[in-house]
Amino acid sequence: MFAQRTKNLNSSFIRDILAVTQQPHIISFAGGLPDPQLFPVHELQQAAQLMHHIQGNALYQYSETAGLLPLRAYVAQSLTVADSQPDDIIITTGSQQGLDLIVRCLIDPGQKVAAEAPTYLGALQVLRANQAELVTIPSDDQGPDLNALEEIVKQEPIRFFYTVTDFQHTLMPHRVIHFGSFSKVIAPALRLGWINGPREVIKVVEKLKQAADLHSSGYDQHLVLHYLQSGALLPHLDTICTAYSRRLEAMATALTAYMPDQIQFTKPEGGMFIWATLTSNESTMTLFQSAIEQGVAFVPGEAFYAFSESHNSMRLNFSNSHVDLINEGVKRLASLVNGERLEGRSAIG
Amino acid sequence: MFAQRTKNLNSSFIRDILAVTQQPHIISFAGGLPDPQLFPVHELQQAAQLMHHIQGNALYQYSETAGLLPLRAYVAQSLTVADSQPDDIIITTGSQQGLDLIVRCLIDPGQKVAAEAPTYLGALQVLRANQAELVTIPSDDQGPDLNALEEIVKQEPIRFFYTVTDFQHTLMPHRVIHFGSFSKVIAPALRLGWINGPREVIKVVEKLKQAADLHSSGYDQHLVLHYLQSGALLPHLDTICTAYSRRLEAMATALTAYMPDQIQFTKPEGGMFIWATLTSNESTMTLFQSAIEQGVAFVPGEAFYAFSESHNSMRLNFSNSHVDLINEGVKRLASLVNGERLEGRSAIG
Repeated sequence: MFAQRTKNLNSSFIRDILAVTQQPHIISFAGGLPDPQLFPVHELQQAAQLMHHIQGNALYQYSETAGLLPLRAYVAQSLTVADSQPDDIIITTGSQQGLDLIVRCLIDPGQKVAAEAPTYLGALQVLRANQAELVTIPSDDQGPDLNALEEIVKQEPIRFFYTVTDFQHTLMPHRVIHFGSFSKVIAPALRLGWINGPREVIKVVEKLKQAADLHSSGYDQHLVLHYLQSGALLPHLDTICTAYSRRLEAMATALTAYMPDQIQFTKPEGGMFIWATLTSNESTMTLFQSAIEQGVAFVPGEAFYAFSESHNSMRLNFSNSHVDLINEGVKRLASLVNGERLEGRSAIG
Repeated sequence: MFAQRTKNLNSSFIRDILAVTQQPHIISFAGGLPDPQLFPVHELQQAAQLMHHIQGNALYQYSETAGLLPLRAYVAQSLTVADSQPDDIIITTGSQQGLDLIVRCLIDPGQKVAAEAPTYLGALQVLRANQAELVTIPSDDQGPDLNALEEIVKQEPIRFFYTVTDFQHTLMPHRVIHFGSFSKVIAPALRLGWINGPREVIKVVEKLKQAADLHSSGYDQHLVLHYLQSGALLPHLDTICTAYSRRLEAMATALTAYMPDQIQFTKPEGGMFIWATLTSNESTMTLFQSAIEQGVAFVPGEAFYAFSESHNSMRLNFSNSHVDLINEGVKRLASLVNGERLEGRSAIG
């Protein structure tokens, strides 16, 4: 009854466990959620008042598929690496839609795409949903293994390489399509992101987006535009960077204190996660089950691998828990890792 | 460089002419726009206040892919034909996204879909973008030719029949997927619609939507939910139905008065358009060019046919112009139809 592509559809592990991890007794390091207490609600409400005043009833009408021109102009001027113009930008329903549109525009079923292992879960979903064939490149805290990439590109017809850049963008702009998002820095509910890429690609994406949803919410676009124009973004970024740095520090300290030998990790320079690996070869998927019982959640690393090729890694989110909860959660995890390790040892012999 | 499916992408004629038809000196019967003066702005602002009060910061967080449960419950209970439950509903970014998701879930490239001729332009775009093969069924003001449909279904493996029901829904609910939208009845900018269908289909659509954009704007969903819960929708529908009926009446009267023999049409019982056919066999695409010069716009009927098989029909929107402008616009069109017809005659003979 269903199309071929639906056979590759998989729901995200993180979404599947949402009901479990959102229970009040669970300290969750699982999601990729920013802390709602840090959302710039006051500034957004001020932006909403101003947009109603300026736009009037027109605020609620249909608008352009590519996105509001002043919003594209703002992104082009302030949020891209190289010289960009509004026509190099298309506004999308979160960066997730950007990924979907680009894959649909560039990939025929069975064509090959290279991606890091581990990578962003949502990208794996999109690539599978669109029947891309995945080829993975090992990646660690130093970034992707570029020699491996070079070898693979020599041997196989790779359509593009999907990479999550390490909080900086140094690649050649003319060969790069960049995905951006307001979700983590302003508010996820507004579902706004953008694609910045070569104009001939943006033009084709625009036609596909017209068929896909006509345009992203005009109301939310005006809201974000007025918020940006108020100059509130930079001070807000300072606020959340300070708060999240403190939480990262707390998690790193707790990991080192409670699991000095049992876990390895590198403190990231951005983002909302610590990627950690058990020094034993134990399965973090098994650990996850016991962790839930102990009231702490994380995401087993294999969810971020196209071929589940890692069994002892885990992703720990630090942005959505207060410092004291972070400490308590890591402590619970540590007692479990130690217990589990011992059990594992005794089971093996 | 681009995927096969992009070869079938076409931009909507209506969107392509938007810049022309939106010029202030043009009386436009071209778009499918509701009148912004009739948007329930005051009630939406009240709903916004209430949602901020009730939701607090959580308003801006990520939410469920299927859509907010109370919104799905409202749609299931109040806006569907048969017994529906929240799990039979998925909230989409306008009904346009509903179409795209359903086609992607049900159609492999080259599979056949039947559709009326004429039909909704956005559906033609989605079907082409997803490489469906179109088979058309003649349709008139009495609806689709069901005998023709029966014959085609006997001969060809038709995956589904896409139909625009005539302001009522009398088909068998268990075999039907229904698309709904808040765009025309509340506000297009909020880009919210829904799919109501068999649960096993909704489940698959939800997985695809997770890959496609994670979820539709949570902010806009809360806004529409609070608006609906305030009970404002039914009185608002009364208001817009009264206003649009008056405009329909004005257009029908003007068409009859100025082009009694040159044009044929049936007054619709709903919607925002009159579908009219020139009694001569002149091309409305040619007429369109001269009409723009005379300061009046419409959409040539062939835009709504998969195979451009109608040349003398046109779609006239009456919802977005005031009564006096409708009269003036039809008058301009009439002088042109009369003139054009004469020129056409002299050119031929």
